[in-house]
Amino acid sequence: MRVAELSRRTGVSVASIKYYLREGLLPPGERTSPNQASYGEDHVRRLRLVRALIDVGGLSVVGTRDVLAAIDDDGVSLHQALGRAQDAVMARVEPTPSDDAAERAEKTVAELVARRGWAVTHGNPGRRAAVDVLATLERLGGERVAGLLDVYAEAMEAVARHEVTAVVDPGDRERSVERVAVGIVLGGALVAALRGMAEESASARLLAPGPAAAEDPG
Amino acid sequence: MRVAELSRRTGVSVASIKYYLREGLLPPGERTSPNQASYGEDHVRRLRLVRALIDVGGLSVVGTRDVLAAIDDDGVSLHQALGRAQDAVMARVEPTPSDDAAERAEKTVAELVARRGWAVTHGNPGRRAAVDVLATLERLGGERVAGLLDVYAEAMEAVARHEVTAVVDPGDRERSVERVAVGIVLGGALVAALRGMAEESASARLLAPGPAAAEDPG
Repeated sequence: MRVAELSRRTGVSVASIKYYLREGLLPPGERTSPNQASYGEDHVRRLRLVRALIDVGGLSVVGTRDVLAAIDDDGVSLHQALGRAQDAVMARVEPTPSDDAAERAEKTVAELVARRGWAVTHGNPGRRAAVDVLATLERLGGERVAGLLDVYAEAMEAVARHEVTAVVDPGDRERSVERVAVGIVLGGALVAALRGMAEESASARLLAPGPAAAEDPG
Repeated sequence: MRVAELSRRTGVSVASIKYYLREGLLPPGERTSPNQASYGEDHVRRLRLVRALIDVGGLSVVGTRDVLAAIDDDGVSLHQALGRAQDAVMARVEPTPSDDAAERAEKTVAELVARRGWAVTHGNPGRRAAVDVLATLERLGGERVAGLLDVYAEAMEAVARHEVTAVVDPGDRERSVERVAVGIVLGGALVAALRGMAEESASARLLAPGPAAAEDPG
């Protein structure tokens, strides 16, 4: 199909498609004349994946390219692909200053890892982010949220166990790696979304008994 | 103190401080001469909060301004402030097309809300995001992750209950609202970070038994 039909099929503008082609997020079509190319079902599928990772998963163009490269590289294992997807999701975290708060946070996270028996490397982007968040909370006087560390860890341990089991499939490698990437990126968006819903509900119960709680069937 | 000392105390560059002043993220200092102003401890504190929301929480400048406005407005209740912080966190979500997948996702989320007895309004940004993610997962063939909806909901219900209880404090309103905002924004970053750690651990166990699992004390 021509680029106009690819646009119609996916709802992505021709300008965006051309941008993704230039940025390497979409493989080139088959040249049919000096200034025309033909695209196939693989392009439709890849374009939907690109938009999902960017629009719904919140990835950057660079992060999306890294995830796609992992999917396309036969030498990347499922475990490695999961790490690449995590790197893309957490790329936005800026390191905060090294100070006493950062040192204490580092120790707190190391103790958490030992306490829960987690197999987590020091380069894990979540580990770096957790240290940053805990140090920042200490600097801002957010001890109460920091005190929920084990509540968060317990919840995420259950989530991660189910997620990894669900996305892994020892069949077709490319589809499997794609499923891992989609699961890591969109699963994170789903976690954030459900947290937002559950918080409104908890807040309505605790803080605003009245109209907002009227939807409560219980 | 002068702007140079404010910069030294907080580690934020003078250029960034001036940008935040222009954007209304930081209240103006007290004018001491036509081109000099004096800043106080409130500015140090506010500047740390701004950087935490942007650098660690991933908020945009606009989102940060909305959260700060809620903190500064006496007419905003704790419950409302929680909603404002959620809006700022989820502002990045683009709505996806309305199609059959979106309709089914809408129904799935409504059923989840009823099943769990959650008091969640239709305008909740997490609810809109959840519909988008589920519809996107269906379009991409990500049913296995979508099938974890109740696992995610169960985990987030526990998290939200603890979070809302922890951040609420019927004492000083401004500090309380600030704590709610910090808790919502940085708590989300902590959830994402711990999910990343727990996923690596689950993946190491399931997919890469060997060197990565060597850190496992169990």
